[in-house]
Amino acid sequence: MREKAIRVGLIGAGTIGRVHAMNIAGIREVELVAVADPVQLAANKIAAEVGIPNVFDDYQSLLKDERITCVLICSPPITHAMIVEEAANKGKHIFCEKPLALSLDEADKALASVEKAGVKLQVGYNRRFDPSFRRARELLQHGVIGNLHLVRITSRDPDIPNVEYLRTCGGLFFDTTSHDFDMMRYLTADEAEEIFAVGGELIDPKLRELGDIDTAVVLLRLRSGAFGIVENSRRAVYGYDQRVELFGSGGMIEVMNHLCDQTVLSNKDGRHLARNKWFFQERYRESFVNEIFSFFACIKEDKEPEVTGFDGRMAIAMAVAAKRSLIEHRPVSLTEVLGKVSKRRPE
Amino acid sequence: MREKAIRVGLIGAGTIGRVHAMNIAGIREVELVAVADPVQLAANKIAAEVGIPNVFDDYQSLLKDERITCVLICSPPITHAMIVEEAANKGKHIFCEKPLALSLDEADKALASVEKAGVKLQVGYNRRFDPSFRRARELLQHGVIGNLHLVRITSRDPDIPNVEYLRTCGGLFFDTTSHDFDMMRYLTADEAEEIFAVGGELIDPKLRELGDIDTAVVLLRLRSGAFGIVENSRRAVYGYDQRVELFGSGGMIEVMNHLCDQTVLSNKDGRHLARNKWFFQERYRESFVNEIFSFFACIKEDKEPEVTGFDGRMAIAMAVAAKRSLIEHRPVSLTEVLGKVSKRRPE
Amino acid sequence: MREKAIRVGLIGAGTIGRVHAMNIAGIREVELVAVADPVQLAANKIAAEVGIPNVFDDYQSLLKDERITCVLICSPPITHAMIVEEAANKGKHIFCEKPLALSLDEADKALASVEKAGVKLQVGYNRRFDPSFRRARELLQHGVIGNLHLVRITSRDPDIPNVEYLRTCGGLFFDTTSHDFDMMRYLTADEAEEIFAVGGELIDPKLRELGDIDTAVVLLRLRSGAFGIVENSRRAVYGYDQRVELFGSGGMIEVMNHLCDQTVLSNKDGRHLARNKWFFQERYRESFVNEIFSFFACIKEDKEPEVTGFDGRMAIAMAVAAKRSLIEHRPVSLTEVLGKVSKRRPE
Amino acid sequence: MREKAIRVGLIGAGTIGRVHAMNIAGIREVELVAVADPVQLAANKIAAEVGIPNVFDDYQSLLKDERITCVLICSPPITHAMIVEEAANKGKHIFCEKPLALSLDEADKALASVEKAGVKLQVGYNRRFDPSFRRARELLQHGVIGNLHLVRITSRDPDIPNVEYLRTCGGLFFDTTSHDFDMMRYLTADEAEEIFAVGGELIDPKLRELGDIDTAVVLLRLRSGAFGIVENSRRAVYGYDQRVELFGSGGMIEVMNHLCDQTVLSNKDGRHLARNKWFFQERYRESFVNEIFSFFACIKEDKEPEVTGFDGRMAIAMAVAAKRSLIEHRPVSLTEVLGKVSKRRPE
Repeated sequence: MREKAIRVGLIGAGTIGRVHAMNIAGIREVELVAVADPVQLAANKIAAEVGIPNVFDDYQSLLKDERITCVLICSPPITHAMIVEEAANKGKHIFCEKPLALSLDEADKALASVEKAGVKLQVGYNRRFDPSFRRARELLQHGVIGNLHLVRITSRDPDIPNVEYLRTCGGLFFDTTSHDFDMMRYLTADEAEEIFAVGGELIDPKLRELGDIDTAVVLLRLRSGAFGIVENSRRAVYGYDQRVELFGSGGMIEVMNHLCDQTVLSNKDGRHLARNKWFFQERYRESFVNEIFSFFACIKEDKEPEVTGFDGRMAIAMAVAAKRSLIEHRPVSLTEVLGKVSKRRPE
Repeated sequence: MREKAIRVGLIGAGTIGRVHAMNIAGIREVELVAVADPVQLAANKIAAEVGIPNVFDDYQSLLKDERITCVLICSPPITHAMIVEEAANKGKHIFCEKPLALSLDEADKALASVEKAGVKLQVGYNRRFDPSFRRARELLQHGVIGNLHLVRITSRDPDIPNVEYLRTCGGLFFDTTSHDFDMMRYLTADEAEEIFAVGGELIDPKLRELGDIDTAVVLLRLRSGAFGIVENSRRAVYGYDQRVELFGSGGMIEVMNHLCDQTVLSNKDGRHLARNKWFFQERYRESFVNEIFSFFACIKEDKEPEVTGFDGRMAIAMAVAAKRSLIEHRPVSLTEVLGKVSKRRPE
Repeated sequence: MREKAIRVGLIGAGTIGRVHAMNIAGIREVELVAVADPVQLAANKIAAEVGIPNVFDDYQSLLKDERITCVLICSPPITHAMIVEEAANKGKHIFCEKPLALSLDEADKALASVEKAGVKLQVGYNRRFDPSFRRARELLQHGVIGNLHLVRITSRDPDIPNVEYLRTCGGLFFDTTSHDFDMMRYLTADEAEEIFAVGGELIDPKLRELGDIDTAVVLLRLRSGAFGIVENSRRAVYGYDQRVELFGSGGMIEVMNHLCDQTVLSNKDGRHLARNKWFFQERYRESFVNEIFSFFACIKEDKEPEVTGFDGRMAIAMAVAAKRSLIEHRPVSLTEVLGKVSKRRPE
Repeated sequence: MREKAIRVGLIGAGTIGRVHAMNIAGIREVELVAVADPVQLAANKIAAEVGIPNVFDDYQSLLKDERITCVLICSPPITHAMIVEEAANKGKHIFCEKPLALSLDEADKALASVEKAGVKLQVGYNRRFDPSFRRARELLQHGVIGNLHLVRITSRDPDIPNVEYLRTCGGLFFDTTSHDFDMMRYLTADEAEEIFAVGGELIDPKLRELGDIDTAVVLLRLRSGAFGIVENSRRAVYGYDQRVELFGSGGMIEVMNHLCDQTVLSNKDGRHLARNKWFFQERYRESFVNEIFSFFACIKEDKEPEVTGFDGRMAIAMAVAAKRSLIEHRPVSLTEVLGKVSKRRPE
């Protein structure tokens, strides 16, 4: 059986790389055979923890290993598009963390290589694989709440990342909101037509020096006429705040937060529940497992991944539109960003 | 229209008397014309507050007033049966606070007078008129959860009453549990067959001197074979705890507590809701209004009250059984208390 | 005591007029002596129901009655400013339903009359008197969640009003959102600096003929730098949806919806709670009582009302800005609407 | 590193055996080297699924393998005590599923062998390792709710097991309630003094033929004077119902159920949440992982297991008392069951 295993290389030994490495350890048909990270300490640590035989300090060496048929790109966002391109050129199947790229040009170049190579590409929008969001989507698509009027996504991290992370993540819209843009598309099976974004440095004024913001509200109009709201913050002291609300002509679907435990204390001051699960590792644990299972299933069964390159590209387009709207303080249409003859969702 | 008003006398100017007086003030066809209480200060205060023209220091004087066609008995429980009897003998319709009496003999004597006089008698089990319990009963009676297996009633006061109240209330089973025994019968439309009660002085050991307890658990078997649990405490520091759970072959119906407000605070320590409404005046406000409306509607429309003398008597029988069980530390059957040829629920 | 009663005239015998009339009936020092409505049937009905001795078919006749020292203006919004002006000129204290006017000019004229006459004016933003919102405000103002970053107000009616109502209400922003604009100011003790509004006819396309919308999202920037979102819909099939969320550097305060009852059914399909209270009469009952008590207390104690003419004017300014933003599809600053030397909140 | 691995044999290839096998697969220092089950199909299936090299059809053969230093007893309850004894005699560390035995005599014999052999024994009360219960215990033990007055444990399975299971499980009190008896001891750090149990065949009358019941209520008095209630049912159609309530002089601690997901649908009929997680595999997943980790940590670090043989014995004593109470319909003291000079909790 081991003969038939998919041999995987992990590029990037940071937090998210470790999440995937641990989850892959539980899949019998998949073998994690190499990890690459310029920070050797990080690469070695994961290798020891999960039991990965080969450690590289550059991803190119990993890509040269012909026994590796599949890579997981978990490096900083600024490197994603470039590595996708190179990996595709080497004929490897690719799981790439979000965002796929930091510009549409980069994305298009990477996607062209993927298409040419005929390899699988799945983008790491793990939240699509969360059971609560999945059920919300199903209910909506089955017409349970009639016509959609409003989608609201609240998406707040527990705390602001360090400066190194902030420098390489592409900014709030590419890093955090990217998930929410994809969730908007996933839930609604619709596309944004126009975006108006506001934001600021309400948590840490030093973000201005990085050209970034820590707080944002993005207002969208979808093709169907429904409206969308995304609310982001880099710091919710009560833990990861990940809620969705779908409001329609026939009712409302909500996805509520996940609490640390189900213990409730009642005393003279009131009724006290646990706080939210702290961050994505706890809140989305199940979705990460499902996501990576799904990816390998697509390779084995030669199916299209559940999150495609097109999906990755659209989230970038939305981030580009949001950023432009923020800077120019006006509503920005997606057509303006994508060009008049925009690439349509493939049939 | 005032000519046709029902002229009412209030006997007892305590907390519950005041609740009814205020509610009656809002009913146009009913006129509260007299109040009687040996504590003149209390009687005068209510009279001023609600606008009652006549104040007596003994209930007999009030009963002599022939223009009064209806009385509300809100005096201490040890006096209930006696006053019901006298009021019935004077031909007055009667709303009597729970418990109807502190023994079955007293109750039977009072009920005989009521029957002979042909007046209306409603016992003050206000919780039957609470919308949440009412809906719970309807759901159960409509078979929504199939056959009933277990009823659980949690019934905890926010704080222990003063000694004067404790001396005249008849003890925990007649005072507090009485409501829960009635609720058990109301919800299930069934009767208890056997009762096993345990209890103690966990809050205040001085209750032992009064021959009373402050904490109890009563286990019941109903005729249907379903089980019942009543949990009582004289002090829940988080406020009035009034919950019901009906568990059956097809599901469960719960009635949850009512919180003071709907504000929720989330911070690093968790998620904080308001505490329960403090006591019966807040929690059961709506039920008291409905109860008293219902009573006067029965008089006007010559209908049987929603809580009858029979209901009042059964709650007493259950309290008697519970007390005997507590003392003798064994299960006590209702037949033992009611006598072999027990009065059956009237057809 | 009746000699000292405040003698009140009610102008407008519609839904909200009836709410106030019922609540006033419970206040001993206040006497509702007249009602005026061109629809005589409505006026007569309320008069009979609550017991109001004088019925007029025009408000001018009511205003002429010199024994009336106070009026409640509950007529259609298009008449508010005009009646406020006339009532003030007659020296009457005024409770005026929201909105105070449908334009700033009208409002300013009315407010000038009020100021000149030295009478009390309270505007009907009843939600300020809701215990949950009040506690939310207190928590925020006491710094419990640190610096405010985002306020979100969800405000959805259970169903769309009839055409007659829609014709005279001033449109969504003046009718519904008006409450939310005021709530935004009340909760934050801050003012809006800029407004961006989107909306549409997602429920009923016929609204376009009336120049109105049924669905809106309004995005605000407050002077403090915090952002605000108001979400409106004319139809939430699950009942009145009235939520608030305050997010800040130290946590989050939410006000949740009020359900019809506290009964919960668990079966094989899940856990089923009651739906929301249906509309404002049920959800805000307590706030209407508090509001009208507060108004009469201000008259008796010669204090400034809790909702002033200034507050009424600011909500209009915000509605004007929202409407302009909707039409011109751009962010509109409040300065643009109020004029450069805007009237500041009085010290 | 593999040299130092703990070599484990699994006895019993049923549902719970499979749960442990899967969890052990995730622990690097532990190697599952053999499985034994008279049902070869079951043993082979697990062996294939998890990758276990040796398969036996009798547990004795497995015990003879000297390289195995540790066994997991997951066979039917009627075999537990016997296998514990034999395994101890072979010097193996033992993880034994609950109940440890079906009588005190059996238990005592097995425990004597364990003590003599000096091996570790942990009994499978996994719920102690659930984060919510653990926090509840900590809060209680830290005095957060003052003196304990009442413990309530609701423990309902989603559906009744098949006849084969029912025949070998020892009956409701040894099978299901056993967990709740242990939880009562775990949460309170106290012992039961007296037990009164009622029950019946409300789900399936055929249980009578097996001498078993499907529904029970057990009332306990603890040494501290606090009361305890355990509610059991073999069928809750809304899924696994696992709640705890600790009520004390200073407040209440509750552990609520876990729902399948956090999606909520609001429509004209109300507000609909997901149903409970279906059964122990879903609800207690985390606790099973923690439990087995803890067991192996005790072996490695030569510490006393978190659930001892004494704990296993006390749960049996409580089940014996409950059964006697049910049959004789009277309160039964633990002293009566344990003998006058009862074995005390070891210091």
